Amino acid sequence: MAKHPYFPLDLELPGFVPNLIPYETILAVFFGCSALVVVFMFVLTGRFKYLSAVERLWAGWWMVTGIIHFVIEGTVVANANFYKDTTGNILNEIWKEYAKADSRYATRDAFIVQMEGVTAFIWGPICFAIVYGILYRSAWRFTAMLLVSLGQLYGDVLYYLTCFHIGVEKHTRPEPLYFWGYFVGANAIWIIVPITCIIYCARHVNAAVAATGKVKSH
Amino acid sequence: MAKHPYFPLDLELPGFVPNLIPYETILAVFFGCSALVVVFMFVLTGRFKYLSAVERLWAGWWMVTGIIHFVIEGTVVANANFYKDTTGNILNEIWKEYAKADSRYATRDAFIVQMEGVTAFIWGPICFAIVYGILYRSAWRFTAMLLVSLGQLYGDVLYYLTCFHIGVEKHTRPEPLYFWGYFVGANAIWIIVPITCIIYCARHVNAAVAATGKVKSH
Repeated sequence: MAKHPYFPLDLELPGFVPNLIPYETILAVFFGCSALVVVFMFVLTGRFKYLSAVERLWAGWWMVTGIIHFVIEGTVVANANFYKDTTGNILNEIWKEYAKADSRYATRDAFIVQMEGVTAFIWGPICFAIVYGILYRSAWRFTAMLLVSLGQLYGDVLYYLTCFHIGVEKHTRPEPLYFWGYFVGANAIWIIVPITCIIYCARHVNAAVAATGKVKSH
Repeated sequence: MAKHPYFPLDLELPGFVPNLIPYETILAVFFGCSALVVVFMFVLTGRFKYLSAVERLWAGWWMVTGIIHFVIEGTVVANANFYKDTTGNILNEIWKEYAKADSRYATRDAFIVQMEGVTAFIWGPICFAIVYGILYRSAWRFTAMLLVSLGQLYGDVLYYLTCFHIGVEKHTRPEPLYFWGYFVGANAIWIIVPITCIIYCARHVNAAVAATGKVKSH
């Protein structure tokens, strides 16, 4: 049986199969496909003549984050045995690689599995609804973006905090790629973009509330 | 040394001191004071002649939930030794009693401590700002209520889900008072009221966005 690379090294993971795809390929597929989704969405939404470039970029973000939630995070929630995969399925390869930065995915930590479950199967589908809401400027789009952005941000903040509470060294390999690249770097996206989105939505909502408030009060 | 009543019963909690106040008194103080805060806020906000009864009730909710977050939940985050208290301090007595429904507070479970930390010291202070925002009808009040309500709801959903993931019997006493009364019942408040508040805010925000959208587009 292959020895696994996850911390702590004495973790029992019977049936572990090492990565079958080199990590450079996994990263290239993940980030390459993500960038392509945003670019495709930007190009395709060009036909919605009334949308600003900023709105078209937000449509790209909500599409790509929805796909990542539903497809990629959905995989790790549904498939506790991802690390036993012998087929080289890219979705399992991603998680075999990421677990080097956080073995709680392999050990099925209660918070990780449940937070990812909500993210994949609640936030995920709502992300796709938000894409529709942005394209057709539905009145509820800012409300939905505020709620899901806060959900992403809070989930990610708790993700970092619980890891530091337990001790990063407990389930993160010490190499900089895993701590700085995967654990800090990749997850920071869901800190930075949701905060940006909350600010964007808050400006619109607060201005709209102020405008209608004036009409009604005076 | 006193034997503790928390599940699992073989948990090591050196220095445990049993409740010094009867649980009926603890519950009466907690729920009585909470109700009083809402009633006081309703009466006191009567001087804001432009506020509806619904707005005055929301001001009461945000005041009482802010106090519970900051004072009561803040206590358990800041004081890991609450179960050793010999003074009969009501804030520690509340947690000694509640831990019968969830010993993760005594064992300092990573998710519990960090989720309660965010709730106490991030949501808590924002609740008080929201009270101000409601009283003076600040334009940002709905945005803030949406965000904090989602934070409360998501934290509580993860609270239930992680408990069921691990197994309720692992850290909850079997008596109905603890499971149905404290664990399910008390926490259900932060499922029901935040959902109600999100619906309330979404209606106002979506209507305001729809109204200003019309002004701009046509």
